[in-house]
Amino acid sequence: MLALNSTNPQIATPEKLAQRLGVQFAQPQLLEMALRHRSAGHVNNERLEFLGDSILNMVIAERLYHLHASAPEGELSRWRASLVREESLAVIARELSLGSYLVLGSGELKSGGFRRDSILADALEATIGAVYLDQGFAVAKTMLERLFEPMLTHLPDAASLKDPKTRLQEFLQSAKRELPTYEVSDTRGQAHKQVFEVTCHLADSAQTALGRGSSRRKAEQAAAERMYALLTHPKNE
Amino acid sequence: MLALNSTNPQIATPEKLAQRLGVQFAQPQLLEMALRHRSAGHVNNERLEFLGDSILNMVIAERLYHLHASAPEGELSRWRASLVREESLAVIARELSLGSYLVLGSGELKSGGFRRDSILADALEATIGAVYLDQGFAVAKTMLERLFEPMLTHLPDAASLKDPKTRLQEFLQSAKRELPTYEVSDTRGQAHKQVFEVTCHLADSAQTALGRGSSRRKAEQAAAERMYALLTHPKNE
Repeated sequence: MLALNSTNPQIATPEKLAQRLGVQFAQPQLLEMALRHRSAGHVNNERLEFLGDSILNMVIAERLYHLHASAPEGELSRWRASLVREESLAVIARELSLGSYLVLGSGELKSGGFRRDSILADALEATIGAVYLDQGFAVAKTMLERLFEPMLTHLPDAASLKDPKTRLQEFLQSAKRELPTYEVSDTRGQAHKQVFEVTCHLADSAQTALGRGSSRRKAEQAAAERMYALLTHPKNE
Repeated sequence: MLALNSTNPQIATPEKLAQRLGVQFAQPQLLEMALRHRSAGHVNNERLEFLGDSILNMVIAERLYHLHASAPEGELSRWRASLVREESLAVIARELSLGSYLVLGSGELKSGGFRRDSILADALEATIGAVYLDQGFAVAKTMLERLFEPMLTHLPDAASLKDPKTRLQEFLQSAKRELPTYEVSDTRGQAHKQVFEVTCHLADSAQTALGRGSSRRKAEQAAAERMYALLTHPKNE
């Protein structure tokens, strides 16, 4: 296994990362383990990632619970999913330059694994696990609240995070219109790689929208998305 | 909304439940809210359930992390899923007689909602959320560790929690045999309610196993389960 920046180890040592996190580790080996991708060998960050993921989910849940005291559970849940998904975690990992502290196997190193969203997100979660084990809940929580503060104060519109069928249904309900129906209008291809084509119908309009996908469910979502766009931005379509 | 046992409120008051949990609430209204199913009205336990679920997942994650210091992440993850699933939570809820403390709408009350796994599991999670908000992390953690101790010390065999395809694949790999293949051997029914039939083949044997399901994936899992049974318990089949 190779450490990145191994020609100049002073640039990106785990101690430097600990400093950026504002944490003084009693057991620095925990942070070192959090930075070891599974390609680096048997001792790696996968178990810490499992632990850190659960801490992250909990701290974000509580933060959202308090910040949005009247938001229903569904909104809290969708907001959290958007905050803890891989892309969001990778943004924070990049702000910490986490990639430069990673220990990767030679294959991952050559293919630029230290830039990959999934590897960065996993290492961030593992780092959270390491901070928790070393420093306890309160320190991990404070660190996470600080790291996620910008995202927590700029949450996306809760409705935009809904799946297209739900969004379309709620849009129609709020306009006192009847619910849409979905009909499989075509299936193509062999059984093991079928393409479904679904048509979305409105009860009170001749307007229809088509969606395709590798399953009936995906095709319905695509049709709902198209119908929602037709109803809300008719000019652009 | 109706309280259960409303003719004899002394039997099942939230205070009694708090006693059973070993928690003295500073804000008893939190526990009261945790016991209000959404059928009871606008003020209900759904937000607390969201929070409690995340605390439960975290505490169980940490417990498993420490109890099984060499178990890979995949095993920890499957064990946790088995501990926090609805059926397991309902077992613990019943030990606490949680059903008798619930506040349900009249419809749910008549249909026996206080006995339903999903309602019991949700109320238990909400109760965890209430304990955490009122008493903090350490108290919630200690309570959860106590409630889950019997299940944590009698974990199911990790392999038995794997999905059938994975289990079959690992069984064959450990016997240095080639991987199975899956073939859609039949599809029946209309596009929107197809039944898939999949045959599982082994490279080094004429033995085959059939599985059916509402999707290709489900039919493959069923075929793998059948094949695994054929290989491991040939007599019983």
